Amino acid sequence: MTIQLHSLALKATIDVSIHQLEIELLDQTLLPNSEVWMMIRTPEKMIEAIQKLQVRGAPLIGVAACLSLAQESMRNFEPDHLRKVSDQLRASRPTAVNLMNALDRMNVALLRGSFEFVVQEAIEIFNEDVDLCQRIANHGVSFFSECESILTHCNTGGLATAGVGTALGVLQKLHSTNKKLHVYVDETRPLLQGGRLTAWELERLQIPYTLITDNMAASLMRDGKISAAIVGADRIAANGDFANKIGTYSVAALCQFHQIPFFTAAPMTTVDPTCLDGSFIHVEQRDPDEVRGFVTSQEKKIWAPLKSNIYNPSFDVTPAKLVRAWITDKAAFTAADVIKGCFRTV
Amino acid sequence: MTIQLHSLALKATIDVSIHQLEIELLDQTLLPNSEVWMMIRTPEKMIEAIQKLQVRGAPLIGVAACLSLAQESMRNFEPDHLRKVSDQLRASRPTAVNLMNALDRMNVALLRGSFEFVVQEAIEIFNEDVDLCQRIANHGVSFFSECESILTHCNTGGLATAGVGTALGVLQKLHSTNKKLHVYVDETRPLLQGGRLTAWELERLQIPYTLITDNMAASLMRDGKISAAIVGADRIAANGDFANKIGTYSVAALCQFHQIPFFTAAPMTTVDPTCLDGSFIHVEQRDPDEVRGFVTSQEKKIWAPLKSNIYNPSFDVTPAKLVRAWITDKAAFTAADVIKGCFRTV
Repeated sequence: MTIQLHSLALKATIDVSIHQLEIELLDQTLLPNSEVWMMIRTPEKMIEAIQKLQVRGAPLIGVAACLSLAQESMRNFEPDHLRKVSDQLRASRPTAVNLMNALDRMNVALLRGSFEFVVQEAIEIFNEDVDLCQRIANHGVSFFSECESILTHCNTGGLATAGVGTALGVLQKLHSTNKKLHVYVDETRPLLQGGRLTAWELERLQIPYTLITDNMAASLMRDGKISAAIVGADRIAANGDFANKIGTYSVAALCQFHQIPFFTAAPMTTVDPTCLDGSFIHVEQRDPDEVRGFVTSQEKKIWAPLKSNIYNPSFDVTPAKLVRAWITDKAAFTAADVIKGCFRTV
Repeated sequence: MTIQLHSLALKATIDVSIHQLEIELLDQTLLPNSEVWMMIRTPEKMIEAIQKLQVRGAPLIGVAACLSLAQESMRNFEPDHLRKVSDQLRASRPTAVNLMNALDRMNVALLRGSFEFVVQEAIEIFNEDVDLCQRIANHGVSFFSECESILTHCNTGGLATAGVGTALGVLQKLHSTNKKLHVYVDETRPLLQGGRLTAWELERLQIPYTLITDNMAASLMRDGKISAAIVGADRIAANGDFANKIGTYSVAALCQFHQIPFFTAAPMTTVDPTCLDGSFIHVEQRDPDEVRGFVTSQEKKIWAPLKSNIYNPSFDVTPAKLVRAWITDKAAFTAADVIKGCFRTV
């Protein structure tokens, strides 16, 4: 029996009876201008694809790494070897919590003694992510029934998950019932995930959108052109503060200033109950050349002085008080739920 | 007698006795990576330089166009011809109010019947701009004596004027007495005047600075890293509302949200008393490719979908209520002065 897994940026064809597991990835570094699918035949190639950001988005990285481990387990079911491969996959993106959690599950499956269990676990992880996105979307739509134009930041769609995405999944679901929906997309400097990836996804989904530079959102808000904003989350603290792509806090603060509701959408696996509040989230600095110019794994174009002093945090922290609701696969939580402790245990 | 005029991006050598007026412009489209001076020998070349943004900044464009007309008047003092040249220079940047005003003065000088008057008027316009910048700086510094880190947006320095600049001129003056000053520079998408030009100027002036993407300012404010913000102004309405580079309103709103004082610095010639308030300022849209990618007169690199729908206003309007003071060459005005009518007549 052949099983086909198919998401926007990952395809897998699995036939356990003939020991076959084919993985294809859409090379995200070439979007939006070319759509190139690359065959991944070894864990080394998957690690390279993760490191070069050819596959990206915390949930999708987790899914892709698990499929790669399953592929290797079919070729050579040797537990010590597979645990080493699992460690190498885990080290490919040290900050991705989903990757750790997914590989922990794979390591448990490894103990069951045959590759079938490992492959089955990878398929389940894929399907769970699809289901999770759908549940986030279902929990989110009711907040936006009156909204005609919604601002989003970064990329949180089908390219970042195995399913319809998180924040962008909510917008996709909304579009299916509200054809008046218009999405404003922050380009999301420095890495331009909005301009490159979200714009590409919305075009593909035929959802009307307008791309803007990040500094234009404020004047659109003042002109009454934005009815709500929705973003993803990389890590949610027990008190509801959350870390997400740099520029998210700017959107949240401007929404508050203009009395526009601001939402975040993410799987419950993003919640870190051991992190009490945003002040405990360490913000790492990235390559300064990303701010000095336009940098992808394919090319580098520097327009600022070569030695300019740069501040380039990978994300910022948005305080809970600016969030109208946290939309998760379990439920959509309000400030009252957060105070009652919905994120203190998961 | 030879007269030398020298600013950061324009040099002129004038010897009336031998009918010589040499103009050199620093090609701003090549900054910050190369510093190339180009000799301007004809009005056609000056018009081309203005249109290609090789010379930019409303005050500097006015000064450069006047010197070009003076150069032509020395070669061929034929009033009808010179008025035609004056009209062509004026049409090179239809939105630049300074250019209109400066050429109006030149047209009056033309009526006086010899090129000496025309050359003299151009020299005066240059020197007045230098003086004006100095007075803006003098009126501005006292507001910032306690400030260690100041945010600025776009380019408002020596590259945009014949003198030290407007907002950046204030910071330059401040640096001369306060060596602890640190400037945060918004890169200013889409045209990146902050990343390309302001960073270059600050490096040259040895003023410590950090370049950021526009969406990072909010989290710096929240972290207490910004003590004030200062920007330029393209047009100030009678009630103090003002238009300036897109993203300025975002800075102003975020300053208010974080209780950080926000200032604008501009010559009084920027005030338009016939414009009652910001709602009367028409905001024009620019080339969508500027948002789809990185565009200069030299090159174009598109990273977003080629047909993406784009919003690209050249500027936004900041309401007077967000401004702590309007720093001009005449005085620094507060909200009370504006209510009393300081901008209703000029």
